[in-house]
Amino acid sequence: MRTYLDCLPCFFRQALETARRVTGDAKTHREVLDRVASVIPDLPLDATPIELGREIHRVVREATGVDDPYREAKRNDNDRVTAWLPRLRRAVASSRDRLLTALKLAAAGNAIDLAIASRPDLRAAIERAQKEDGEMVDYPLFLERLQRSDDVLYLGDNAGEIVFDRLVVEQLVERGKRVTFAVRGRPILNDVTVEDARYVGMDDLAEVIASGSDGPGTALPLCVPEFLDRFERAGVILSKGQGNFEGLSDEDAPLFFLLKVKCPVVAAELEMDIGTIVLRSRARPPERGEQDRPAVRAQDAGRRVHR
Amino acid sequence: MRTYLDCLPCFFRQALETARRVTGDAKTHREVLDRVASVIPDLPLDATPIELGREIHRVVREATGVDDPYREAKRNDNDRVTAWLPRLRRAVASSRDRLLTALKLAAAGNAIDLAIASRPDLRAAIERAQKEDGEMVDYPLFLERLQRSDDVLYLGDNAGEIVFDRLVVEQLVERGKRVTFAVRGRPILNDVTVEDARYVGMDDLAEVIASGSDGPGTALPLCVPEFLDRFERAGVILSKGQGNFEGLSDEDAPLFFLLKVKCPVVAAELEMDIGTIVLRSRARPPERGEQDRPAVRAQDAGRRVHR
Repeated sequence: MRTYLDCLPCFFRQALETARRVTGDAKTHREVLDRVASVIPDLPLDATPIELGREIHRVVREATGVDDPYREAKRNDNDRVTAWLPRLRRAVASSRDRLLTALKLAAAGNAIDLAIASRPDLRAAIERAQKEDGEMVDYPLFLERLQRSDDVLYLGDNAGEIVFDRLVVEQLVERGKRVTFAVRGRPILNDVTVEDARYVGMDDLAEVIASGSDGPGTALPLCVPEFLDRFERAGVILSKGQGNFEGLSDEDAPLFFLLKVKCPVVAAELEMDIGTIVLRSRARPPERGEQDRPAVRAQDAGRRVHR
Repeated sequence: MRTYLDCLPCFFRQALETARRVTGDAKTHREVLDRVASVIPDLPLDATPIELGREIHRVVREATGVDDPYREAKRNDNDRVTAWLPRLRRAVASSRDRLLTALKLAAAGNAIDLAIASRPDLRAAIERAQKEDGEMVDYPLFLERLQRSDDVLYLGDNAGEIVFDRLVVEQLVERGKRVTFAVRGRPILNDVTVEDARYVGMDDLAEVIASGSDGPGTALPLCVPEFLDRFERAGVILSKGQGNFEGLSDEDAPLFFLLKVKCPVVAAELEMDIGTIVLRSRARPPERGEQDRPAVRAQDAGRRVHR
């Protein structure tokens, strides 16, 4: 998808959060936002939010001098969810459709804010994954596609969440599939890198490769040839999270997007409500009158004047 | 209160919403945000969000050439709530403590997003106003102060909401108080002006004066001498909504803030949760370690990475 003007405030918010993670120095925080403001007029909105997000985080890195602000947080998230893994595996094993349950749990992993998650959140996620079906609309198509393909390219998303992804990969391996698990080319936000994948043992189950993308999602213009080659030959691509959706929604490929809808722009693109967990093959075709504006739904389009 | 860096993304969001209200032209939307970006480095964060918001909206006006983008929306909101007035008045009349109920309904008026409000929202607001008490913590103090004062300065907030404010003004007049109702000095967002106050008949109950502020709230540096004189002499000042709080929270005056908490920064300043309706005399004294960061609570301080 292209970038909407609605994404600009979000770029500022992310830059500020990242800067605060790196230092408590108010002057640096301000400096970061001033630098972000200075690149705004140069951002080409026909690029994906991932390509522009990459620019923003480059600016933040330059202003702060810190390369991987989320390193410790990612480690904590990976540890935390790894501790949950036996329980998650039991939930999968005891379910009627193990692959579907694993997919729903992986989507739930995208939904839990691990920084503030508690045991009840995990329990609720597991219960939800065992009960609800409605939103995984393209699961039958996914199964069909899977039958015709020996290998699956899985595009990872965030740390912590990657342990939930293991559940799906385990199910795919059990069905005799060769899985390639792709991660970012360098640290950005709390996105998974090769280091994270190895840390949670993903390399025992799948071949772990770096996409080369140094943006907060997979966008093909940012990827290395080795990854592009895999992407083109893949029979099934399971794309996890909003970032990968933002980067790939317009690509012509056997893509299945598994994510929780978290912002109004993606909600409009998918024609889904914020908060929904979806498995969807490709995005719906865009049919829009106004060039700049996502078809934001009534409840989001309220005036939000906030005064 | 001073402006936090968290306010900058909000300035962009407001500018974009206002630009879209004025025109469907994507180039103008972009031009507006580029111009907002260009003034970011010059914004002094020791000023209130109201003074900086004023700058932002000046930039938007210059870029769009439109002086009052919310004119029609304000008229619609005023009409809509006026149609509810008989019902609202009955709710006040049939309650045990009419002034308290009127105050709670006025706060509810600050809470309802009129652009998408429906009859059930109104009914719920009335029911809530008749039941809950907990958040109007400084009501006893307000009553005490009221007994010692013959006149009340009421600082208005938004269109539509102003009709809810009538309920309070009616109760004050019934108790023999002289009420002065202050509005913005010029159109900004959906804030009330003299035109709105007259349109809903506020001038039949109270003396309507313009504060002179051309920001999205009352900030004394923006006000005219006539208003400042009233402000200084007032025995009780009822300040409505977040905008007036943002502009006045540090002023030493007999202020009672009546508002719904709508953003993390104001929530931190008030040490209240987002969504709370409050009547509070002055803000709590600031006790902060880090200069740039509001004491945002755990549930807001989650990483909000959104990917």
